Amino acid sequence: MTEFDLIARYFTRPVAPGGWVRTGVGDDCALLDIGATTIAITTDMLIEGRHFFPGTDAAAIGHKALAVNLSDLAAAGATPRCFFLALGMPRADEQWLAGFSAGLFALADRYDCVLAGGDTTRTPTLLESAPAIADTHQGAAGAAGPLTISITALGEVPRAQVRGRDGAHVGDDVWVSGSLGGAALALAVAQGEAALAAAELRACRERLDRPLPRIELGIALRGLATAAIDVSDGLLGDLGHVLSRSGVGAIVDWPAVPRSAALRAQAEDVQQRCALAGGDDYELLFTASTGSRDAVLAAAQAAGVEVSRIGRIDAATGLRVCDAAGRPIALPFAAYDHFAGGVR
Amino acid sequence: MTEFDLIARYFTRPVAPGGWVRTGVGDDCALLDIGATTIAITTDMLIEGRHFFPGTDAAAIGHKALAVNLSDLAAAGATPRCFFLALGMPRADEQWLAGFSAGLFALADRYDCVLAGGDTTRTPTLLESAPAIADTHQGAAGAAGPLTISITALGEVPRAQVRGRDGAHVGDDVWVSGSLGGAALALAVAQGEAALAAAELRACRERLDRPLPRIELGIALRGLATAAIDVSDGLLGDLGHVLSRSGVGAIVDWPAVPRSAALRAQAEDVQQRCALAGGDDYELLFTASTGSRDAVLAAAQAAGVEVSRIGRIDAATGLRVCDAAGRPIALPFAAYDHFAGGVR
Repeated sequence: MTEFDLIARYFTRPVAPGGWVRTGVGDDCALLDIGATTIAITTDMLIEGRHFFPGTDAAAIGHKALAVNLSDLAAAGATPRCFFLALGMPRADEQWLAGFSAGLFALADRYDCVLAGGDTTRTPTLLESAPAIADTHQGAAGAAGPLTISITALGEVPRAQVRGRDGAHVGDDVWVSGSLGGAALALAVAQGEAALAAAELRACRERLDRPLPRIELGIALRGLATAAIDVSDGLLGDLGHVLSRSGVGAIVDWPAVPRSAALRAQAEDVQQRCALAGGDDYELLFTASTGSRDAVLAAAQAAGVEVSRIGRIDAATGLRVCDAAGRPIALPFAAYDHFAGGVR
Repeated sequence: MTEFDLIARYFTRPVAPGGWVRTGVGDDCALLDIGATTIAITTDMLIEGRHFFPGTDAAAIGHKALAVNLSDLAAAGATPRCFFLALGMPRADEQWLAGFSAGLFALADRYDCVLAGGDTTRTPTLLESAPAIADTHQGAAGAAGPLTISITALGEVPRAQVRGRDGAHVGDDVWVSGSLGGAALALAVAQGEAALAAAELRACRERLDRPLPRIELGIALRGLATAAIDVSDGLLGDLGHVLSRSGVGAIVDWPAVPRSAALRAQAEDVQQRCALAGGDDYELLFTASTGSRDAVLAAAQAAGVEVSRIGRIDAATGLRVCDAAGRPIALPFAAYDHFAGGVR
């Protein structure tokens, strides 16, 4: 069972009309109509050892925990307003908390996004099982569970310019911001599957540890992007969500997929795996009509971000990645999935 | 450093006027003014081994995870509207998921509270450290971290009837709903510090595992309660929050504190510890003017909940618990704290 099957089977129910919820489970953000205002809300949980290396700089963790949520707001074209933090920690380490909150608030302040509430709790050790719950209630010392950070972020979006994953039309261009694969390359180096010079590794680790949410671009694309998603699980998987929600297919032009110089120096299979299936880039992937090309480029320039046109939406369902000659490339992987038990 | 010191030191900043946030960090709910609507939002994280026993029935976990959030909405007098779920699981266990989602939705449906979005992730093992992050990204098998559930719930509250922890006035009565100490008594039995017959233990475990949020009472008390909080950390600690936020003191009449028959059969020190310092009851603790007594009783009757008048707000700061003769009782404990390293 994949993560998406799981959500579909156990947590997706029809949304009744007349309430606040306009779009619910299955998009980057839920959209709520509250009076005349439409708000976008998203929740992401980060767990040590799963989403970041144990020992990662506390400020980077604070940054990333908020960044991945703001990235979902960017996909929805929302202006960040406030967020809520639930924090499970093995212990109250003041040095760690000072770093974490500094990284968190530095990013929050950049977007005037206010911490409005939250919850803190101590994570138990795996050894604190049934009889030992008594001890946990008395604050037993000992090793403890992984750092767990859950953030819910709220933003505002003009009701007439709401977009989600379901608006891609046949003939639309497929665009992506920045470059892909840097975060996955940092992981590949950590796994011993690739090698990088120190400066290049630092740059890739920066992509992994301190991704920049594309808020300005998300806002600039209001009324232009027909569908949008952030690249968190990998280009193929995330584009696949857009395609299945929109009921269309796509052709991706592999040579046009933007990669950093460090990634372009790697073997072709590493490049493809990192740029197409590597998660954690937090770039914006979006579709727009061919008539909007100049407007998209102008919006991106105003937002200070490069964008690349990497393919087009097609009536034939499915996702084909093609080489320079237009021939389909066979790929042995798709997107990262938390529950698939391996790369699918 | 206590949990509250931690929040004050690292996560509390002045709320700038003009934004959505009316009341932020430090109350049960944050209050956001969005257009003409005021919404209450709360976040609570539950971790296996900390908030519930490993092996607890999945439906009970689903119930409780939402109940503790709805209980915060009840304190704010809000009508539940929707919620967001972040779920960290050691594996995708279909039987567990079926039970968890059934318990979750049964409570959600009772209050027309819609699951509007969320996030799922696999918790890593404690052994999945730095080099092994590679394995986790490939879905390595093995033992895994504790179940972690973080819910953010949203409700609506009439702007003119907003209440928080800071509205208690000198002379107000102190009230509490239902009975206190049942959940703590179930824990005391698990710790071998108390004994109960099977039927009584079942009832106390029900209080621990399936607390009922006092939504109807919270709504019925709109315009009546001057301050309110839910009893999650223990009566003394939670009343302490109201007193410090309101700048007042209180006298609590110990004989008037409502306890179940099972708790009344315990030794006096067990009764006091469970009813005054035991958490997890999720009753409403509130203050109201003496002129509102009849209205409070009528509201409680309409909501189908008993309420008890247990004390009064006093100008002298601090919290005094008195016996039947009005003499202060010396107590060796206060509230439960996640980070205090023991009962304070």
